[in-house]
Amino acid sequence: MTHHDATAPTGRPAQYGLISFKNVATAVLPLYDDGTIVLVGQNRFAHADYSWELPEGGAPLAEDPLDGAKRELAEETGLQAREWRKVLHVQLSNSVTDECGVGYLALGLSQSEGGHHCDDTEVLALARIPFRQALDAALDGHLKDVLTVAMLLRAYHMAREGDLPDALARVMLG
Amino acid sequence: MTHHDATAPTGRPAQYGLISFKNVATAVLPLYDDGTIVLVGQNRFAHADYSWELPEGGAPLAEDPLDGAKRELAEETGLQAREWRKVLHVQLSNSVTDECGVGYLALGLSQSEGGHHCDDTEVLALARIPFRQALDAALDGHLKDVLTVAMLLRAYHMAREGDLPDALARVMLG
Repeated sequence: MTHHDATAPTGRPAQYGLISFKNVATAVLPLYDDGTIVLVGQNRFAHADYSWELPEGGAPLAEDPLDGAKRELAEETGLQAREWRKVLHVQLSNSVTDECGVGYLALGLSQSEGGHHCDDTEVLALARIPFRQALDAALDGHLKDVLTVAMLLRAYHMAREGDLPDALARVMLG
Repeated sequence: MTHHDATAPTGRPAQYGLISFKNVATAVLPLYDDGTIVLVGQNRFAHADYSWELPEGGAPLAEDPLDGAKRELAEETGLQAREWRKVLHVQLSNSVTDECGVGYLALGLSQSEGGHHCDDTEVLALARIPFRQALDAALDGHLKDVLTVAMLLRAYHMAREGDLPDALARVMLG
């Protein structure tokens, strides 16, 4: 964390603390044709909590975040996708960090050949559940990770607005 | 920022950095009966950017975040609301911070008597625009603040799912 002496928007002097991130947070919503999605479960030290969330990871700023998202999906779930859509671009905190987040929808899923392997500090559980069940869990507070919640709401919006194949939207919303 | 030596979930030693927040981030979506909403515009130092977003602020952990949300809405817009609904509860970063966010829908808006006043380091602009226009701006990347984006998608979901008065949902989606 670095401290900056700066002029506030009002012209008065002010000191800001800024935490600069070396990564972009990427989140992937892996969506099967039958309307199910994949969540990963893990301990999150920052929140002293066990957390179910989308496959997520950090992509170095110099890298295309899509490449980071593909790698995270493969590492955490062993999946690859035929179609990738960037559907969310956000700033994760407006107060003291400059962390950005990018969300992708991954369609046309299949098991990748190499199988998956985790970073050695990660222990992940996997769950494949209906989209609607995940969305309900996000709205009743069982899923809390903000990128996970925002991506599930984004996918709901896409299903309702005709941005997904009709058959897929029907099983997601049904 | 504090550093913690800890045992990783795999049993291996690991060091974590954790930034603890003294506040809960609150966001308010002020929604008029005619389907318009209010955004505030301001410079955000962390992102070196001008940002339009929902009225937001930090509520001390000891306070009911609803009280903080009411205060922020009044301070930033001069508005009060007849009805408050807590519709979002998220964790804003899963990596190095433990910041939580709570989102409220504010209905039955009216100008509060005292008018509004800002913190002396804040210069705010206000814009009242149709909900649909704000949602489109969130999805095409013009609005980036994650609580703002998530709350607009949440309100879309509520309008579609019958969780808002019919007449209001119609003007929001129309």
